[in-house]
Amino acid sequence: MVIVDGKNLAREVLDDLKPFFAVRKTALAVISVGDNPASSSFIKEKSRVAGVLGIEFLHFNFTSDVSNKFLRAKIGEIVRRDFIKGVIIQLPLPKKFNVQYLLNAIPVEKDPDLLNERSFGAFLTGRFKIIPPAAEVVKIILEKYGINPQGKVCAVFGAGRLVGLTVANWLTQEKATVFIINEFTKQPEKIAKKADILISGVGEPGLITKKMIKKGAVVIDFGYGLKNGKIKGDVDFEKVKKRSSLITPTPGGTGPLLVAALFQNLRDLMNKEKE
Amino acid sequence: MVIVDGKNLAREVLDDLKPFFAVRKTALAVISVGDNPASSSFIKEKSRVAGVLGIEFLHFNFTSDVSNKFLRAKIGEIVRRDFIKGVIIQLPLPKKFNVQYLLNAIPVEKDPDLLNERSFGAFLTGRFKIIPPAAEVVKIILEKYGINPQGKVCAVFGAGRLVGLTVANWLTQEKATVFIINEFTKQPEKIAKKADILISGVGEPGLITKKMIKKGAVVIDFGYGLKNGKIKGDVDFEKVKKRSSLITPTPGGTGPLLVAALFQNLRDLMNKEKE
Repeated sequence: MVIVDGKNLAREVLDDLKPFFAVRKTALAVISVGDNPASSSFIKEKSRVAGVLGIEFLHFNFTSDVSNKFLRAKIGEIVRRDFIKGVIIQLPLPKKFNVQYLLNAIPVEKDPDLLNERSFGAFLTGRFKIIPPAAEVVKIILEKYGINPQGKVCAVFGAGRLVGLTVANWLTQEKATVFIINEFTKQPEKIAKKADILISGVGEPGLITKKMIKKGAVVIDFGYGLKNGKIKGDVDFEKVKKRSSLITPTPGGTGPLLVAALFQNLRDLMNKEKE
Repeated sequence: MVIVDGKNLAREVLDDLKPFFAVRKTALAVISVGDNPASSSFIKEKSRVAGVLGIEFLHFNFTSDVSNKFLRAKIGEIVRRDFIKGVIIQLPLPKKFNVQYLLNAIPVEKDPDLLNERSFGAFLTGRFKIIPPAAEVVKIILEKYGINPQGKVCAVFGAGRLVGLTVANWLTQEKATVFIINEFTKQPEKIAKKADILISGVGEPGLITKKMIKKGAVVIDFGYGLKNGKIKGDVDFEKVKKRSSLITPTPGGTGPLLVAALFQNLRDLMNKEKE
C-alpha cells in the first residue's frame, strides 16, 4: 500500500518548473477579501512556493465592506498590468459577492485556476491544453503510479466546482466510468464499493469509511475540515488505508499538489502566450 | 407504462411560444456545410417549426470546399445582423473544420444551442438561465410526468457534447446520482440495471437491451441511427418498453422535443435581452 507523499511529489513538479521561471520575470496576483483563516494559510503556502520559483507574489487584500462593483473594477485594473501573468481570486468570497461575475474578469490567458467560465467551458469541450488544478492533481498522481483511468470505475463524492465537478468531467474525458455521488444518494457505500478509484471533495471529515472501499482501491482525498481541532480530509484515513492500494493523507496529500498544479498551469499559460 | 408522445409534447411547448414570437420580428439563421442527408432533414424540421411560429428562417449552406477562415468570416457577418436573433451551426461539420472555434463565433446571446464554450461554461457553473436543448428535453419530460431526479440513480450512456456530457452535468446539478457509461465500461448492464432513469445518446441501434433495465425505469433515448434502412434509437424499444414505466420512442420521441427546446431557448435569450 502506497501513501502518496504530496509534499515530495509537489517538489518534483516544482523542480520541473524552476528553469522556466528562472529566466522570465513573472508576477502572480492573489486577490482576497476579508480575513478567512483557512484562506490565509492557503495564500501563505502559495506565497512560499512563488518564492521558491522566483515569482513575484502580489497579495491584494480587500476588506469585506467593499462593493461588488468596486471589487470588479479593482480586478480589472490588476489583470491589465502586463507584468502580472496570473491572477487568482482566493475562494470562498463572502456571500454578498457575485463570485462568477468576478471570476469572469480574469482573462483566460491569466487564469491558472480555470475559474473564468470561458476557461472552464474550454476545458469541458476538451479544447484547452491546461486543466483545472484538482483534475491536474488526479492526473499527476495517476501518472506517477502508472494508473490509467480508462475503463476504471471512479466514484466521485461531491460535485462542487473546484473538485467534484471538475474531476468527474476530467475522468469522463479520460473514458472512465464515473459515478457522481451526493448527499441525496441512497446507500452510497454500495455504490462506492464498486469503485477502482474513489475521489472525495466534500469537506466532511469521516465521510468516507472503510466499508465504502473496494479492496485495492485508489483513494484520493481533497476534503478539508477540522475535527477535534485537527485538519482532516473526508477519508477515515487510518482505517481506509488498510483496504486501499494507494491513498492520499490529509494534510500532506493533495494540498501541496494543488499549489504545484497552479504554478504548472501558470507556466503553461505563459508558454501558450509565446506560441 | 407511458410511451412519450414527443410530437404532441413538442406541440404543447410550441403553443406556449406562439404569443411571444407573434409580436416580435425574429429571424433564425442556420449555417450548414456540404449536403449531409441527416442534417438536411433536421434543418427541414427546424424550418417547418420556424414557420409555425412565424419566425423567418435563413439557411446559409456552404460547399465543403470553403476554408475554415472563410467560414469563420461568414459566420461573423451573419451574427452581426441585428434582425437575426439566433444562429445555429448544423453539426456535424466535415472533419477539416475547427468546429469549436467556429461555434465560438456565435455570441452567447444568439446561441440557443449553447455551443459557444462560454455559453457551455456558464451552463456548467449553473449561472445561466437557459440550458442546452438535450438537457431541456430531459427536464420537459421529467416535469411533465412529475419525476424529480434528485436522489435518483441516473445512468447516462455516452458523454458526447450534445447529449451525454450535457445531460450528465444537468442531472448532477439537479442532485441526481449519476453514472456515466462509455465503450470501455465493463459489464454496463450491471451498472445500468441500478438506474431509475436511463438516458442514451450514443447512436448505436440496439445498444440498450432489456437486461439493462431496472423494472419501472424511465428510459429516454437520444440515439439516432439506421438499422435495416429504418431510423432507430439506441434502445431496443419493443423489448425495453415492457420493463420501463416511461419510454421515448424513436422517431417521435426526443427528436421533436429537441427542436422545440431550441426555439424555447431562442425566446429565453430574446427575453433576457430585454431585461
